[in-house]
Amino acid sequence: MSKYSIGIDFGSLSVRALIVDISNGEEIISRVSEYPHGCMSDKLPSGVRLGVDWALQDAEDYISSMCKAVSEAMSESGIDKKDIAGIGIDFTACTVVAAKSDGRPLSSLPEYKDCPHAYVKLWMHHAAVKQAERINAIGADLASDWMKRYSGKMSSEFMFPKILQVVEEAPEIYDAADLFMEGGDWTVWQMTGNLYRNSCAAGYKAMWHDRDGYPSKEFFKALNPKMENIVETKLRGEVLEVGSCAGGLRADFAERMGLEEGTPVAVATIDGHCAYAGLGKADPGTMMIIMGTSGCHMTISSEDRMVPGICGCVKGGILPGYYGYEAGQSGFGTHFEWFTENCIPERYVKEAEEKGVSVYQLMEEKAGKFLPGETGLLVLDWWNGNRSVINDNGLSGVIVGMTAQTKPEEIYRAIIEAMAFGTRKIVESFVSTGVPVNDIIAVGGIAEKNPHLMQIFADVLGMPIRLAGSSQGTALGAAVFGALVGGKARGGYDDIFEAVGNIGKTKDLCYVPDKDKHDAYGPLFERYSRLYDYFGIEQKDLMHFLKDTKSKCRG
Amino acid sequence: MSKYSIGIDFGSLSVRALIVDISNGEEIISRVSEYPHGCMSDKLPSGVRLGVDWALQDAEDYISSMCKAVSEAMSESGIDKKDIAGIGIDFTACTVVAAKSDGRPLSSLPEYKDCPHAYVKLWMHHAAVKQAERINAIGADLASDWMKRYSGKMSSEFMFPKILQVVEEAPEIYDAADLFMEGGDWTVWQMTGNLYRNSCAAGYKAMWHDRDGYPSKEFFKALNPKMENIVETKLRGEVLEVGSCAGGLRADFAERMGLEEGTPVAVATIDGHCAYAGLGKADPGTMMIIMGTSGCHMTISSEDRMVPGICGCVKGGILPGYYGYEAGQSGFGTHFEWFTENCIPERYVKEAEEKGVSVYQLMEEKAGKFLPGETGLLVLDWWNGNRSVINDNGLSGVIVGMTAQTKPEEIYRAIIEAMAFGTRKIVESFVSTGVPVNDIIAVGGIAEKNPHLMQIFADVLGMPIRLAGSSQGTALGAAVFGALVGGKARGGYDDIFEAVGNIGKTKDLCYVPDKDKHDAYGPLFERYSRLYDYFGIEQKDLMHFLKDTKSKCRG
Repeated sequence: MSKYSIGIDFGSLSVRALIVDISNGEEIISRVSEYPHGCMSDKLPSGVRLGVDWALQDAEDYISSMCKAVSEAMSESGIDKKDIAGIGIDFTACTVVAAKSDGRPLSSLPEYKDCPHAYVKLWMHHAAVKQAERINAIGADLASDWMKRYSGKMSSEFMFPKILQVVEEAPEIYDAADLFMEGGDWTVWQMTGNLYRNSCAAGYKAMWHDRDGYPSKEFFKALNPKMENIVETKLRGEVLEVGSCAGGLRADFAERMGLEEGTPVAVATIDGHCAYAGLGKADPGTMMIIMGTSGCHMTISSEDRMVPGICGCVKGGILPGYYGYEAGQSGFGTHFEWFTENCIPERYVKEAEEKGVSVYQLMEEKAGKFLPGETGLLVLDWWNGNRSVINDNGLSGVIVGMTAQTKPEEIYRAIIEAMAFGTRKIVESFVSTGVPVNDIIAVGGIAEKNPHLMQIFADVLGMPIRLAGSSQGTALGAAVFGALVGGKARGGYDDIFEAVGNIGKTKDLCYVPDKDKHDAYGPLFERYSRLYDYFGIEQKDLMHFLKDTKSKCRG
Repeated sequence: MSKYSIGIDFGSLSVRALIVDISNGEEIISRVSEYPHGCMSDKLPSGVRLGVDWALQDAEDYISSMCKAVSEAMSESGIDKKDIAGIGIDFTACTVVAAKSDGRPLSSLPEYKDCPHAYVKLWMHHAAVKQAERINAIGADLASDWMKRYSGKMSSEFMFPKILQVVEEAPEIYDAADLFMEGGDWTVWQMTGNLYRNSCAAGYKAMWHDRDGYPSKEFFKALNPKMENIVETKLRGEVLEVGSCAGGLRADFAERMGLEEGTPVAVATIDGHCAYAGLGKADPGTMMIIMGTSGCHMTISSEDRMVPGICGCVKGGILPGYYGYEAGQSGFGTHFEWFTENCIPERYVKEAEEKGVSVYQLMEEKAGKFLPGETGLLVLDWWNGNRSVINDNGLSGVIVGMTAQTKPEEIYRAIIEAMAFGTRKIVESFVSTGVPVNDIIAVGGIAEKNPHLMQIFADVLGMPIRLAGSSQGTALGAAVFGALVGGKARGGYDDIFEAVGNIGKTKDLCYVPDKDKHDAYGPLFERYSRLYDYFGIEQKDLMHFLKDTKSKCRG
């Protein structure tokens, strides 16, 4: 008789529950439930206005939406709750809940319902930029070993900038909060009654390190005296590797979700990182690239290396037992959105209409026809700045080589090539530091819909590229962890590789690099690297000056 | 009783005859006559196919069209032919006629009517690129003093590349030609019976220098042994300053043109350079900028200086008695044509339609609204390469600073600023070498139609800019020379300044630089200069590599 695992994937606006057959990864059923309060960026339910770049959520939505999605999936599937081996959870991050010791989120207490800082700060809350800058400056002195793991820069999306914003702007909320927790950890705590944190979010978003723990009291005190003892107070809770069991499902949750009490629940992971487990291939040397609005590059290794320009290296952060590495390109799909919004002549819109395709498809098609270097153009793909390997948001895009004959599809092609070159810089940074990258699996809609782009990436990188096998790969990865915490005893797996291999999937389609084209890209990549160093390092002040001047003009 | 002068302006496809009142520059009447054979770029009238980049004309068209235009203007104006003080001629250049000693163009002889090389090579004949490269290489060794006056580079449009192409590809035509002449000089020769050449075309297009003459026999022999004695044979004819009298109109021409026999005819000048005389201001320190497909910058000085990056310095080349300097920007209007063809989103086309304006006007309007630096962009305006001050056709355009928020009008604005910065580089090159530039007069449709562009130029340069007063300023300049060769005796002028001042015109409208904006452009211009040196000098191989790779890919 089949056994099943449930992967629960908490996104920015909704949660997905996916029930998977453990033996072969068959995706039996999935149900999505939206958060009643969505993402609050303008005002609270009570009407209190929020500042620019705020993004809040109501923690109670996570529980209600999860219970709804899982119970619907269970009842519609007709699966016996006894056959659910375990539950895995992935969550957006860094998404911070301020809670009381008994688990209640501050926003649920009547006295705080009008306080914005009492609500969950969603990952995309970008109002703590100044706090991040201060942390980076203080960290360079007082937490330099930690800062290096993030290439010296903490994003404003991370845990401590968000907490520091609370301390500074609403000290009474900071005092009232007994705990600051990742949304995923808070949810698992509610489900199991056990307060754990996961190595993935702690490591990638909150300066935690498996050997060194968090930075010193001195560092936290320098941020703000109130924060001196934050680690043992408001950050308390053991950090467990991903794939660890947090405990069994409590009776009340079991009831609401249509599951058996005591069903094992895995500690949470970050959604993006979780997708790696869903690929069906957990070999060091395999890099996953998530191709979304931005690009995210992840791989695992048994070695702990300082890779220049990465966003984080965390033991047990992606798969248990391995160092998980994350790097990224700030702009990915952004470039195509920008181009189609701003650079498509009318005649191309008409051509797309006549052919019955989108302008994206039309441009992909036209851009696919060139040989390496045929456009005469070279681009730096920094419309959103550069994350890896320079890590500088103040950088911006460059196009070199325009002539009176340059066509829009040539610029489009050169942008794709630049994105591939940017990935190659990341891969080379890994390889040169002793973290091998041998093949690539791409995830996301861009990878699915742009075959020419995929071939260009394969040719530029000189590596085969496959596609993730599932369109709900993140939830599938969570289900892998569910099967793992279930263990053999409940019909799951004791071994992560077995779980990944049987449940995860990659498509058969493989983009194989063309040797001649790879060779032809060599001299172009060399020039890309030259521009990369010139604008990103030697003359980085030039782009900063342009951005600063623009900001000043706009007041 | 009024006296008149006739300016005859030979363009690429037609000739214009303008009759002007000498006392005040009033433009009495003008008539245009097209060349029957136009510009032949595909085939000869007999059907013989031409190569890529060829552009030929039939010299006899010049005579027939000129006679038609002048006689029509004369008869319709009702002016007495005795009141025509003189005739001035301007012509495209370098436009080369191969002729027999008696004046007949080779193409008029039956035995050569199927030979492409027997026809006039129009200025835009671009099939002698390889010959230009060879001349530049040989000239660096054997004519280095001459090459310096063209910043080391002869364009393929110039006289000797065109002649060398004849020697190499059709030696029998070279042998049969007794003379190679500028179209303007050939026409004046036919009109007067006197064989002269003009200092303007000889100096700017044919390596002639007022002190040093042409390069040595050794140089010409190195180009091709057949050319060793070319100067005293096929190039014979005294070189006279512009504004000199070539002689009186011959009886047969007087008859055909409706003029008096013996009416004084000035030596020819190049059309662009001739416009300077039509500005009404012949002060050293005044720079004329012709804003067309490309940009052309001219000024005069009593000093003979080696200005880095100029296209030529010729004694008596613009106005008699002065050194005339020419510099240029390879791309000017080109940039706008490229942009509107390739970078205008559909919604802007609709907006222009709704407002009842052209997309050019719409973009100019939108681009005019920014403060200096507000776009966050910096552009190198090299879509057509860089003429002055680097002189490298292999360079290409650059845009730096794109973000996901960058709008098309911001790019358009940054291109305009780059064109202004490019002009500022030229002005600074003049000023730093001791050739002052104090004010600017702009000529051409772009200057007339783009008030925001003009204001940006004034702000970037920190100089007042006026517009030429006539829409047929080139013909007006020719009429100035007609009045000068007529002299006081015939009711004209003996003094060039008097002629220019009374006949030439500038509009009252003046674009006055805004001091604050000029200051704000300073740091941007500094960055422009940095990119200029990086891509144009230090790393020029990068752009050459991109162009070469593109060419190779296209076969």
